[in-house]
Amino acid sequence: MVPTKALGIDIGGTSTKLGLVNKTGELLRFTSFPSRAQEDFKFFLEDLKSVTEDFLNEDKVIGVGIGAPDASPLDGTMSRPANFKWGEKVHLVDGISKVLNQKAFLTNDANAAALGEWYFGAAKGMTDFVVITLGTGVGSGFISNGRLLWGKRGMAGEFGHIVTKPNGRDCSCGHRGCLEMYASARGIRQTVLEFLAESEAPSSLRGYDLKNMSVRKIEKAARAGDLFALKTFEKTGHILGSKLADLIALFDLEAVILSGGVSRAGQLLLKPTLESMEAWTFPAFRGNTKLLLSEMENANAAVLGAAALVFNELE
Amino acid sequence: MVPTKALGIDIGGTSTKLGLVNKTGELLRFTSFPSRAQEDFKFFLEDLKSVTEDFLNEDKVIGVGIGAPDASPLDGTMSRPANFKWGEKVHLVDGISKVLNQKAFLTNDANAAALGEWYFGAAKGMTDFVVITLGTGVGSGFISNGRLLWGKRGMAGEFGHIVTKPNGRDCSCGHRGCLEMYASARGIRQTVLEFLAESEAPSSLRGYDLKNMSVRKIEKAARAGDLFALKTFEKTGHILGSKLADLIALFDLEAVILSGGVSRAGQLLLKPTLESMEAWTFPAFRGNTKLLLSEMENANAAVLGAAALVFNELE
Repeated sequence: MVPTKALGIDIGGTSTKLGLVNKTGELLRFTSFPSRAQEDFKFFLEDLKSVTEDFLNEDKVIGVGIGAPDASPLDGTMSRPANFKWGEKVHLVDGISKVLNQKAFLTNDANAAALGEWYFGAAKGMTDFVVITLGTGVGSGFISNGRLLWGKRGMAGEFGHIVTKPNGRDCSCGHRGCLEMYASARGIRQTVLEFLAESEAPSSLRGYDLKNMSVRKIEKAARAGDLFALKTFEKTGHILGSKLADLIALFDLEAVILSGGVSRAGQLLLKPTLESMEAWTFPAFRGNTKLLLSEMENANAAVLGAAALVFNELE
Repeated sequence: MVPTKALGIDIGGTSTKLGLVNKTGELLRFTSFPSRAQEDFKFFLEDLKSVTEDFLNEDKVIGVGIGAPDASPLDGTMSRPANFKWGEKVHLVDGISKVLNQKAFLTNDANAAALGEWYFGAAKGMTDFVVITLGTGVGSGFISNGRLLWGKRGMAGEFGHIVTKPNGRDCSCGHRGCLEMYASARGIRQTVLEFLAESEAPSSLRGYDLKNMSVRKIEKAARAGDLFALKTFEKTGHILGSKLADLIALFDLEAVILSGGVSRAGQLLLKPTLESMEAWTFPAFRGNTKLLLSEMENANAAVLGAAALVFNELE
């Protein structure tokens, strides 16, 4: 018997990645093409049809999963996508299911990440966990009672916009002090620059500004013993950990899984986060929740997660 | 056709209330008896059997729902119940299902409150809401994606132990600054005493201490225009509202419902809570979540909620 397969599509502002995935998480085929986000949506659909023709000729493809920014899963659209000129409301599920003649499902990046870990990664067999995506922004996808948590309008999981410092840093959402302003790549860059501004001590990170500083540079400096870089990961972990403790009190979680570019800092981030999470966790709940790193390879995580959405909906 | 009925049992440290409830939320029969919490568990079971004999002779009783403190819903026990001498681990579901010869189900107070509002109260027809119980403590019960959220060990919903003021008031859980220390009856009493301590201005609330102050007294004073009492509800609402905004960002809620003794203050509490909730809500989510008061009569809410658990499990 040929096992079932799903097509996972990860739509980004620059390129679209797609792959054929089976239920054990093998990426059987993979390709990518330019999204042409500044042109008409119909060109995207035409290109998608031509690159996938070959993939979809295979046996047992049961559906298409789509991960996209600004996704509204309940009506299958992207709403006012920031970096796309495809219209105010882009009917992704309608358009893609028609041109590919397949059932199609849509979710946002963080939910796709959670499904990917559940089917293929660090959360296999769990019923209650959260995946935190730490990248340009901070997102979260929850599996509770063995089901993906959507919320009323399909938008649950805005962990990045929990208010963390009431009079803190300005956030692009219009508030001040959102967690995203401390635990995202941008937040971490700002934190190290603030530490550097407090002292004249030497550091390999001097001479950069918010634009050309990067989490990779800070990570490298930390591994070489740079005190500003080390302090930055400590502070980031302390803030993140205290907010993870809130999630544990609310959701009674088996695990918290960190994913996304920032999580590649590994133990540099994990250690202070765990310390803070344990310290802030409601005492009656302490010791019941694991803090883990994503087990998905970053380059393919979004495609695998989008494919997992199909298995989750159809099997 | 006779509609189905469920027996709801609310076990308290002093007395146990029980009632026969149909699916439209009518309390068809009701009684209560002393719990004898300081004696052996077997006396409770004997008394329960004798008072319910008559109830259970009725047609179409499909099961028994139990609300109890320190409940572990997943294994049907009370774990180290604070005010009971029935043992370290009391097998409520086993014991009660045997003596009554009925299917039995157990949950904690906050989940029972959420189910009660869902079946019979302010949340009828909703799929995503939270009920906040404001009483001696602060609890919460979540319905997400149309299902009660349990968590890994059945203990989800510890909203009262979200850390609200990192160096704030000592909480009995061992932490400092838990929401419960500001939004519970005890928290409100402490807040008014702190305001009174700041000034010598006259107030009808002078002369009380933490022991003999009550939320009812503060409410009465507020309605008579007492400035200390009014400030107390404002401060309580501001703190509570800011934390409700976190829940909205995480769960994408249709409604937040306030219940429990403290919620009887009505608009005195609702108005500042709503202002703060709206102000702190993630801007993209603003205006999508209603703040409501419980529609359950307080005296019977726990019995109705326990009965709703049966309908939720069996129908």
